[in-house]
Amino acid sequence: MKKVFNIAVVGLGQVGLYLLNELKNKRKNLEFITGKKINVVAISAKNIKKKRKFKINKKIFFTNPLEIFKKTKVDILFEAIGLSDGISKKVVETALKNKIHVITPNKALISKHGDELAKLAEKNKVNLEFEASVAGGIPILKSIKEGLATNKISKIHGILNGTTNYILSEMENTNQSFERVLKKAQTLGYAEPGNPKLDLNGFDAFAKVRILSALAFNNKISKHKCIMEGIENIDLKDIKIADQLNLRIKLLGISEIINNQLFETVHPCLVSKNSYIGNVSGAMNAVITQGKPVGESILQGEGAGPGPTSSALLSDLISILRGNLGNPFGISSSFRKKIKPFNSGYYTNSLYLRFEVKDKPGVLSMITNRLAKYKISIKRIIQTPDKIKKRATIVIITHKTSEINSKNCLSIFKNNKNILKFPILIRLYN
Amino acid sequence: MKKVFNIAVVGLGQVGLYLLNELKNKRKNLEFITGKKINVVAISAKNIKKKRKFKINKKIFFTNPLEIFKKTKVDILFEAIGLSDGISKKVVETALKNKIHVITPNKALISKHGDELAKLAEKNKVNLEFEASVAGGIPILKSIKEGLATNKISKIHGILNGTTNYILSEMENTNQSFERVLKKAQTLGYAEPGNPKLDLNGFDAFAKVRILSALAFNNKISKHKCIMEGIENIDLKDIKIADQLNLRIKLLGISEIINNQLFETVHPCLVSKNSYIGNVSGAMNAVITQGKPVGESILQGEGAGPGPTSSALLSDLISILRGNLGNPFGISSSFRKKIKPFNSGYYTNSLYLRFEVKDKPGVLSMITNRLAKYKISIKRIIQTPDKIKKRATIVIITHKTSEINSKNCLSIFKNNKNILKFPILIRLYN
Repeated sequence: MKKVFNIAVVGLGQVGLYLLNELKNKRKNLEFITGKKINVVAISAKNIKKKRKFKINKKIFFTNPLEIFKKTKVDILFEAIGLSDGISKKVVETALKNKIHVITPNKALISKHGDELAKLAEKNKVNLEFEASVAGGIPILKSIKEGLATNKISKIHGILNGTTNYILSEMENTNQSFERVLKKAQTLGYAEPGNPKLDLNGFDAFAKVRILSALAFNNKISKHKCIMEGIENIDLKDIKIADQLNLRIKLLGISEIINNQLFETVHPCLVSKNSYIGNVSGAMNAVITQGKPVGESILQGEGAGPGPTSSALLSDLISILRGNLGNPFGISSSFRKKIKPFNSGYYTNSLYLRFEVKDKPGVLSMITNRLAKYKISIKRIIQTPDKIKKRATIVIITHKTSEINSKNCLSIFKNNKNILKFPILIRLYN
Repeated sequence: MKKVFNIAVVGLGQVGLYLLNELKNKRKNLEFITGKKINVVAISAKNIKKKRKFKINKKIFFTNPLEIFKKTKVDILFEAIGLSDGISKKVVETALKNKIHVITPNKALISKHGDELAKLAEKNKVNLEFEASVAGGIPILKSIKEGLATNKISKIHGILNGTTNYILSEMENTNQSFERVLKKAQTLGYAEPGNPKLDLNGFDAFAKVRILSALAFNNKISKHKCIMEGIENIDLKDIKIADQLNLRIKLLGISEIINNQLFETVHPCLVSKNSYIGNVSGAMNAVITQGKPVGESILQGEGAGPGPTSSALLSDLISILRGNLGNPFGISSSFRKKIKPFNSGYYTNSLYLRFEVKDKPGVLSMITNRLAKYKISIKRIIQTPDKIKKRATIVIITHKTSEINSKNCLSIFKNNKNILKFPILIRLYN
């Protein structure tokens, strides 16, 4: 087997640059662990002159990453550009076609094009590794592919986005509004300064759910629609009311087999303050896997940032240096199947409903009558009047009901003069 | 590469028998995942006639496992006999010398003879895998060897013995004595019916700490003495007092590099009820790793029982079927070094001290004077008198002090007519 591996790093943003520095610092260490030498022979980014935190070797710099394949012999390529399409996809495809192993933290790319890229990798007998794409430093993908490989997994759920978890924790701890805490998260580097939307609306977590499902259930990456809600509409008020109910709001990603059908979702959940998941705070990620015969296993760790991401990228590098060839999704692409999607209308939960209403007689009974009509039974009601403004907040915790039922039931409140805004709905975690 | 692998299972106790059944049930699944076929060609136990939960194939039964090597061609051997020496060691050695891969859950064997067995495996270019030896279904060894391989790990600690954790949780929840809960644990199969000593005295957890250290710090398995305390002396009274202090008692295993020296210990710890580790209850195991750059990562899952153990054994099998050859301890044996042991006399903690004393004037001041003489400062004192028996319980929480200091300080209370029994000492987790 090869003794020296030539490496290219494409994309020198926060992650790529940190990785480059780690590759330099850990050269000896990697040789010690694997018995193989590495040489970084090519790096690529848009701008050679940009001021960077670490010094780069300009002699091996390429402005166009596709030139690398023409001019240098590369064995392993790190793709750290990001985005699901465009140049990042082109670079990964070209590398695989040239029989170059690819390592990437790019969840958008894998969750969209993972199936075809995996086929390409298998056809060319090279690795396509993406441990860093889900839950940063937590070796969750390897755990599913190897550690839990013979288990029958029934469900995976967890906190898959550190930014939103940080924001929710910080709102609770500091009593500050969503907007204020978001600014703070951006200053600290947890949230993208330009466009934090993909974190906040659940898209990022959803991409990770899709990758986890594909590994846990051996299915092709699902494309169908499902419930995806972010935290943009979480009000400090709801966090405070949850607190009084001994609950806490978490953005959860869930992937589950229900009646042999695949159910994937990302939405805010109310969880008990005494539960494990209720106590995973700050920028932490956590993934809970239910399998047979292993039972419940939990993996928790820092989910983002260049340090944890780099740790995962280097663990993939070690697998390749050790010669551990394997299919990108564990089993061969030809065995992976499509699982029928579960109809999300039948997804059932207890619900937290918050109504802001005019403080007039008959309003509460109008609401409870409507709920009764849809057979949504009430577990708990808390009504807090605001005498000065002549309005009231009514919080109702319901027993379990389906999505379709609650949607139909709540629709009437859209144009009701006594209901001041459309009711807030947060699902309780089952 | 080989397409069909011949397998032997030696030892048909709870784990071996369950494994055998899983190998039968998951034959197709294993082929699906790895593309390789398996054949169980030999099984071995002391007694062929023993009544067993699952039917065994008597045509391939060997009373003497060493006969297997003479009569059958085996590629992979599972050793599930247990114990560090005797026939289990002989079987593993013979297998490795015959270029047969070995998979074992035997922590006693690995923590005592792991170094020489690893050398033997490397020399014969076969795998020696022991994921199941530490924390059952949690893929902690693979995580350290692969997922976290390039991190600089500074500390690993956690709950490594499910039996003791179950007993401590159950004492707290049911208000029952150690002896009573132990009996219950034995009935439920959590604790050995015959000799639960190795679980209770910390030996089992200590063997796991040694294996974890070897992997995390690339050192040869340490042989030196250190603090090893079990839970045999934990009194329901201490659990109740801890509860009032918002603390909980957990048996922790700790491996840490302090001043470039290796510190390994197992002892009961008082941890906050609000901490993560304080909420890992029942037969669960949890391992917390601190590393750079990855930060803190947590793995939690069922630590024992045939299901989780079998999950880990099969994950090792998959590695071998996939052709992932690797050194048993990650790096080559020739690179593994001895790390100087940290002098445990300098280990420092806040202490919980419980004194049972005669309720007479001057006793408390005698105790506090003695502590002051050794510069052990007091954080908190709770004195509870028992007027009828004319005695009192004094609980003192101290600030941090070293082992050597507290030992010297407490020695005087051994023969003191006002101190009714030697004080109970439980360390607070740092």
